[in-house]
Amino acid sequence: MTFSSLSQLECPRCGTVHDADQIIGLCPCGSPLLARYDVQSVKLTKDELAARPPDLWRYHELLPVRSAANVVTLGEGMTPLLPLPRYGREVGVDRLLMKDEGLIPTGTFKARGAAVGVSRAYEVGVRKIAMPTNGNAGSAWATYAARAGMEALIAMPIAAPEICRREVKVVGARLHLVDGLIGDAAAYIREQPGYFDVSTLKEPYRIEGKKTMGLEIAEQLDWQLPDVILYPTGGGVGIIGIWKALLELQELGWVDGPLPRLVAVQSTGCAPIVQAYENGLPESEPWPDAKTVAFGITVPKALGDFLVLQAIADTGGCAVAVDDEAILAELHRLAQLEGAFICPEGAATFAAVRRLRESGWIQPGEQVVALNTGLGLKYPETVPLT
Amino acid sequence: MTFSSLSQLECPRCGTVHDADQIIGLCPCGSPLLARYDVQSVKLTKDELAARPPDLWRYHELLPVRSAANVVTLGEGMTPLLPLPRYGREVGVDRLLMKDEGLIPTGTFKARGAAVGVSRAYEVGVRKIAMPTNGNAGSAWATYAARAGMEALIAMPIAAPEICRREVKVVGARLHLVDGLIGDAAAYIREQPGYFDVSTLKEPYRIEGKKTMGLEIAEQLDWQLPDVILYPTGGGVGIIGIWKALLELQELGWVDGPLPRLVAVQSTGCAPIVQAYENGLPESEPWPDAKTVAFGITVPKALGDFLVLQAIADTGGCAVAVDDEAILAELHRLAQLEGAFICPEGAATFAAVRRLRESGWIQPGEQVVALNTGLGLKYPETVPLT
Ligand SMILES: Cc1ncc(COP(=O)(O)O)c(C=O)c1O
Ligand SMILES: Cc1ncc(COP(=O)(O)O)c(C=O)c1O
Ligand SMILES: [Zn+2]
Ligand SMILES: [Zn+2]
Repeated sequence: MTFSSLSQLECPRCGTVHDADQIIGLCPCGSPLLARYDVQSVKLTKDELAARPPDLWRYHELLPVRSAANVVTLGEGMTPLLPLPRYGREVGVDRLLMKDEGLIPTGTFKARGAAVGVSRAYEVGVRKIAMPTNGNAGSAWATYAARAGMEALIAMPIAAPEICRREVKVVGARLHLVDGLIGDAAAYIREQPGYFDVSTLKEPYRIEGKKTMGLEIAEQLDWQLPDVILYPTGGGVGIIGIWKALLELQELGWVDGPLPRLVAVQSTGCAPIVQAYENGLPESEPWPDAKTVAFGITVPKALGDFLVLQAIADTGGCAVAVDDEAILAELHRLAQLEGAFICPEGAATFAAVRRLRESGWIQPGEQVVALNTGLGLKYPETVPLT
Repeated sequence: MTFSSLSQLECPRCGTVHDADQIIGLCPCGSPLLARYDVQSVKLTKDELAARPPDLWRYHELLPVRSAANVVTLGEGMTPLLPLPRYGREVGVDRLLMKDEGLIPTGTFKARGAAVGVSRAYEVGVRKIAMPTNGNAGSAWATYAARAGMEALIAMPIAAPEICRREVKVVGARLHLVDGLIGDAAAYIREQPGYFDVSTLKEPYRIEGKKTMGLEIAEQLDWQLPDVILYPTGGGVGIIGIWKALLELQELGWVDGPLPRLVAVQSTGCAPIVQAYENGLPESEPWPDAKTVAFGITVPKALGDFLVLQAIADTGGCAVAVDDEAILAELHRLAQLEGAFICPEGAATFAAVRRLRESGWIQPGEQVVALNTGLGLKYPETVPLT
């Protein structure tokens, strides 16, 4: 039995195939690369899977790390999928579930991409990584780099959550602050020699980690897919990853029927994907003056925007923008009714649930999964002290 | 099959037995009460257990909630048990493991006591709870009360971590701040009519939730108990709970051999249990002017001190005090070497590991489990920004 069934890297834009066992970033055509697996060779049964430890490495056959010895882990994955009976009743969606990505190292789903990305980078020989970040991804990659014994350089906007700066510092990574947005941080990183650039979608494996959210949702629902999945979309890796996971499960023959309608949720303060979706465009335009309380989804132009739009189109989903007022109101409402203190990005998906139910896009009896991508604890200022 | 094998409540001091299916706090003699189970009636096998969902309710036969319908959950439990190879090598304990209680709702192990305590309180008819707290327990109980649809009143010292105030507020609980220590908060709570007082060990079920840490450690080590378990000790419920869990597993016949030596770790700024241990006393004396960076373990006189001292004596353990400087140094060292950003209370256990290894009390080849009781994210000021 091989640990991973990884076969190759493939370009979703030009179709070129690349050897996976090398240090490689983008396709020469400029597109992100996607990992492909020899899914037919996977002999795992659902029962065998059920008996494995509750972390994302339970899906190792569908992950890119070739040797168990290279797995860098802090116990990430198998986060709760929680029914929300009171809140669901209020918004008129009785079968509403929250996938709670707060219960993961560094407190956001970014830990998934970092765990798999760092493990695989280490495996192919990388020892120094660098990345621009809105905060949470930097915390996560710095953390897993430390766990792996790798060096990390993290660049983030001054406006990023302060706690993320502390997370980067405590693990001993180098921190560079920029007076600007994530694009400015990216420009800085591009000029640093000697580091492997692990920016969103510039390396092929972060998405593999994030796709485990999709694998877990399917497993936790006993392989009966929900009707709708909503995701707070910045760089878009989370939603692309979930889509990729579901397609791989189809190929494996473990799920059937239509895929869940995937919904990309953004803030009205930065909604390039929503705009492209509404205008029927295959790519987004850079969003000017991006600003929202949901800092993690402040991405004016995502490298993988075309894939997000494909995921939406392919599954009959949609893209929705909600404003900061609605985000904060929903954050508080969910906490009061269910005891769950979530992050603003996660709260955006709940604002979208309410809106899409009101418009009839979500039907009353449908099963709906909303992603909370992180801990409310990382955003203390969302709760005034007085 | 009955969901719970709870049989009765027993007083560990005077031996009186009480009916468990009533609203009850302390034994009339003033001692905390302990839940007892008809362990022989439990028919569960280890394999059946292994296939259950990864939360603490997998042990429902050994928990006090009688009906699955009364379970109030946010997915708590089955936190990672992580090897710490680099850090372990540095301190000379190769088989060092960290039980990471950061990955749990509200970010500390207090969620366990609150989940089980609130569920059971609700089941016996309680609808309004009140408690004094050093912060984290208040966050947890307010959170689970909200999830249950119960009212909560939380009193905490002004000096408690600010984030805990926000957690209490966001879920809509009543918050009362006192200019003093946890004893002063307790005095306030005693004067509030109409609430059920869920102070540490004043109700019998919080400890049942916390004991699941012991059950999980045993299961995660495939029922081979470690040599030593270290716990940051404030009110003492965590360490008593782990002890109780291991005794119940012995009764069930699932573990054998000697129990792990249990180590109560305190801060030199508040070390009543250590003092009693060193003086061979069965109870502690109130500690004057208690103060430490590990705020959660600032408990000058614990109601269950005599049980903590029994747990230590029975298992051949010990009690150790470490100073704030060592706590903070260890917090940073662990983060750098392993990527784990832990709380000061958790860091205290690592300072104790280092010390006990140096003194020879821990032998090189021994398997040692140190409890990190919470997220470093809840203590941002442990990491200076500059
Ligand atoms: C909490 C949180 N949610 C959502 C996102 C957006 O994720 P993605 O880049 O996968 O779209 C981020 C990214 O920073 C984030 O930090
Ligand atoms: C983080 C943390 N660790 C440890 C403790 C002490 O726990 P116990 O009362 O079970 O001894 C507390 C109590 O507040 C805490 O908040
Ligand atoms: Zn290409
Ligand atoms: Zn008694």
